[in-house]
Amino acid sequence: MTTLQPVAFVGAGPGDPDLLTVKALRALECADVVIHDRLVSAEILGVVGPQTRLRNAGKEGFGPSVTQADINQMIVDEALTGARVVRLKSGDPTVFGRLDEELEAITEAGLDFTIVPGLTSASAAVAALGQSLTKRGRNTAVRLITGHDMQGYADHDWRALARDGEVAAIYMAKKAARFIQGRLLMHGATPSTPVTIVENASRPEQRIVAATLATLPAVLTEADITGPALLMYGLAPRDAAANTLPQVQEMI
Amino acid sequence: MTTLQPVAFVGAGPGDPDLLTVKALRALECADVVIHDRLVSAEILGVVGPQTRLRNAGKEGFGPSVTQADINQMIVDEALTGARVVRLKSGDPTVFGRLDEELEAITEAGLDFTIVPGLTSASAAVAALGQSLTKRGRNTAVRLITGHDMQGYADHDWRALARDGEVAAIYMAKKAARFIQGRLLMHGATPSTPVTIVENASRPEQRIVAATLATLPAVLTEADITGPALLMYGLAPRDAAANTLPQVQEMI
Ligand SMILES: C[S@@+](CC[C@H](N)C(=O)[O-])C[C@H]1O[C@@H](n2cnc3c(N)ncnc32)[C@H](O)[C@@H]1O
Ligand SMILES: C[S@@+](CC[C@H](N)C(=O)[O-])C[C@H]1O[C@@H](n2cnc3c(N)ncnc32)[C@H](O)[C@@H]1O
Repeated sequence: MTTLQPVAFVGAGPGDPDLLTVKALRALECADVVIHDRLVSAEILGVVGPQTRLRNAGKEGFGPSVTQADINQMIVDEALTGARVVRLKSGDPTVFGRLDEELEAITEAGLDFTIVPGLTSASAAVAALGQSLTKRGRNTAVRLITGHDMQGYADHDWRALARDGEVAAIYMAKKAARFIQGRLLMHGATPSTPVTIVENASRPEQRIVAATLATLPAVLTEADITGPALLMYGLAPRDAAANTLPQVQEMI
Repeated sequence: MTTLQPVAFVGAGPGDPDLLTVKALRALECADVVIHDRLVSAEILGVVGPQTRLRNAGKEGFGPSVTQADINQMIVDEALTGARVVRLKSGDPTVFGRLDEELEAITEAGLDFTIVPGLTSASAAVAALGQSLTKRGRNTAVRLITGHDMQGYADHDWRALARDGEVAAIYMAKKAARFIQGRLLMHGATPSTPVTIVENASRPEQRIVAATLATLPAVLTEADITGPALLMYGLAPRDAAANTLPQVQEMI
């Protein structure tokens, strides 16, 4: 009888391998198999051990038909062989990572798990702006929100978000940007509220594009964002950071 | 003339040194001086280089009279000597870390900075529960909120938070717990909504105490929480995690 290893759900962070935690790095080096999402950067996949097999669970890695159920099955099947399985998710696995579906599948299969938290992309994005997510006298709460849910564009507390000083990191927001802009303006948000697009946070291709709520859709089109990106609502790049960051672009 | 180094604002993460990022670890190893908060764990301070001086900027380290202005001055003075200065903050420096005040002081002094993001304690806390901060069909937004602000107990969108399925990680909430409970119940929150206390997330002394909105103040008193703690509103420990975690306590 083989002893089954707990499946490790590991956060890969935003893309820079130096932003892996020490614990994540060790898990990757020791894994027999790493089942990763499409968003995980090539540099991160480069740190796995020589014995490690890489499996791409990203929908685009396997054609359009890889479902969540297929991924769940892949994880369970690998773990049942006794392999040390790392399920590698971009950023923090607990933030917009569909972690629960996979945890339920593996606990149903009688397997144990551990979660190695990772740096969510919003932390890297705000650091690149030279700003912070919360600030005394400005905001006592910050939201991580998604542009999309199962029904399409996600609904949020627009009225609350529309108040001056609110800050939110909006994930998966590229397509939803015009919808978000419309809702916020309709609920009274100031058109000049800063919204900064951070594409490929922490990666060599990182780009920071400054916009406002009023200019957001036009700026997004103009900037031609193709990589993963966050909208940092309520935050502009700090002047001092802007001076040292060649990537900051003021558009339109 | 000496060339002045940019001051590095570095996230120490929640306390487990293995949850430092590789980048933070390197910064600590190479620093001439590390100016740290009281909350940074002894294990983390153990990773600095042999040449590194440690300075405790925590209010309790210097007596009751160390102000934010004193800390700003300490950072600037050290940096002006040409030393490699790491300003080490618990968790992520951009989350309830009073980062802006220090950034403003050092940029006013004509110094440069970099920010090395860190794992915020909520990521470690939710991983310990075996849960995730966002879940399809449950919540499309998660809030990081504080129990306190400059005026005392912080006000929040209680009505929105009171809805079923909302999730928030509440920082600095021990004293504010009864206030938070009162506001949420007054705005219609279900008394059986889970609220889990995670003390010393990721540290050897980690404790997880399960409560509900109804039992929260009594459970907090009973549990005698003395370390840093988060209230994880809307989240209970997953059964599977509870089975393998001796620290999970069901109280009252
Ligand atoms: C499915 S979600 C996963 C989020 C991830 N679990 C995290 O904590 O960052 C994918 C979204 O995360 C954001 N994202 C991930 N990596 C990013 C990066 N390096 N820069 C900017 N945004 C990123 C984008 O909004 C992308 O659409
Ligand atoms: C001044 S705030 C700093 C937060 C920090 N920047 C972060 O990102 O985690 C201090 C609060 O963070 C929370 N905290 C910090 N470390 C923690 C830990 N290891 N476990 C639980 N809560 C923690 C507690 O709520 C504490 O009152």
